[in-house]
Amino acid sequence: MSLRTASAVTPLGPGRWSGAIAPGWDIVGAANGGYLLAIAARAAAAVAGRPDPVTVTAHYLAPGSPGPVTVETEVVKSGKRFTTVSAALIGSDRPLLRMLGSFGDLEESAGVERLEAGPPSLPAVEDCLPIEPTDTFPPPFMGRVELRLPPERAAAWGDVGGAPRVEGWFRLRDEEPIDPLALLVAVDAFPPTIFFTDLPVAWVPTLELTAHVRARPAPGWLRCAFTTRFITGGFLEEDGEVWDSAGRLVAQSRQLALVPRS
Amino acid sequence: MSLRTASAVTPLGPGRWSGAIAPGWDIVGAANGGYLLAIAARAAAAVAGRPDPVTVTAHYLAPGSPGPVTVETEVVKSGKRFTTVSAALIGSDRPLLRMLGSFGDLEESAGVERLEAGPPSLPAVEDCLPIEPTDTFPPPFMGRVELRLPPERAAAWGDVGGAPRVEGWFRLRDEEPIDPLALLVAVDAFPPTIFFTDLPVAWVPTLELTAHVRARPAPGWLRCAFTTRFITGGFLEEDGEVWDSAGRLVAQSRQLALVPRS
Repeated sequence: MSLRTASAVTPLGPGRWSGAIAPGWDIVGAANGGYLLAIAARAAAAVAGRPDPVTVTAHYLAPGSPGPVTVETEVVKSGKRFTTVSAALIGSDRPLLRMLGSFGDLEESAGVERLEAGPPSLPAVEDCLPIEPTDTFPPPFMGRVELRLPPERAAAWGDVGGAPRVEGWFRLRDEEPIDPLALLVAVDAFPPTIFFTDLPVAWVPTLELTAHVRARPAPGWLRCAFTTRFITGGFLEEDGEVWDSAGRLVAQSRQLALVPRS
Repeated sequence: MSLRTASAVTPLGPGRWSGAIAPGWDIVGAANGGYLLAIAARAAAAVAGRPDPVTVTAHYLAPGSPGPVTVETEVVKSGKRFTTVSAALIGSDRPLLRMLGSFGDLEESAGVERLEAGPPSLPAVEDCLPIEPTDTFPPPFMGRVELRLPPERAAAWGDVGGAPRVEGWFRLRDEEPIDPLALLVAVDAFPPTIFFTDLPVAWVPTLELTAHVRARPAPGWLRCAFTTRFITGGFLEEDGEVWDSAGRLVAQSRQLALVPRS
């Protein structure tokens, strides 16, 4: 099933949309956070009448399981360039996430350009290792997207103590085109950075995720990099960058995750 | 007037609070974004019954002018560790910002610790230069907080082409204690990073600001650093770090600002 189908929403009434959490988009039973956000943001973009999630923030309230969901949207402000929308994604018995986002049209964007860094340096896609789900590991979600890790990163996964950092290639299965809403999946698709360290942490639930979409991606594989600098106070941040095949920064992300007491 | 007074809110009814934008907290006529967020977050923390803005996001809708404001709050979820609150800050005739935040109690926080970086290296406070408002420049807001810039940074302001980066010391006037809500002011108090470059940009209005508060600050000056890496697509991000006098990371921030077409 394509992401487009798995995150589709249909109008249910004024500001209300119905959708479904599709099976197989989970990490040990809980639907991937970027995927849940994509469902909510798809409804919000439709309500906004503007396609691009320029900046969206999700606060995660409860794990999502396969089955029907409702999205309740509220237009906070419709301005000249952006429409700000609040959206609640509600599962069968409880709210799953709350989103606040400003949507725009990135075709209209322009201005001075200056980049202090470029895309992550990665081996060619064919020299990287796919993460393919088996019956037990990694999680089913990894079968919904295509991730390729540089061999040295793949080897570090759950193995040796390195920096809390991961980078690699991303695309959707069957070369499904990646629209700006699909970037919300890309920014939450990689294994947590902390899994590449020797820290005794098995699970880092996301409290909040913010993504900025800078441009609509060109077709092809995306280069992604995720870094954590500060594991402290019971939390860690994970900063993401996504670059398209044309070498443009298309998205930036930061999430705040809980580091369970060890 | 202290920040505590300038950001105070009083109950007006179920979930509704009244407050005021105090005079002098503006940048060329528009109230400082961190200050506006502090007003909304103070009401939200009160509603949550939890003092610490663990992660809060503001979307800015319109500039704020001195005068009465109302905060309308909605408890999205009250959980075991966090309460998620949505809040609207409304001026005399229009909404000024929408906030989504999760509040907690940082005294309860603990877990593994690993920092990949430390506080910014700064000359001693007494060797740094204060930013003091005059009749014309810098803006009145700079008189509400105390900022000290390293001499080489102060010299770069609006002068020569350097990296989009600024760091320095921050405290409130009259040594007012800095509580976690005051950190929301600290993360938006410094001149924009782009002012330290030769890029022809005079104004970078904030579209969205997210702050993560990791710990309650120890008394004393805060060390702050703000960096921009990507000016592209008509936007720039500004990443902030705030460290307390005990050398702990107390807040992280990222804002997305518009880069007007040149």
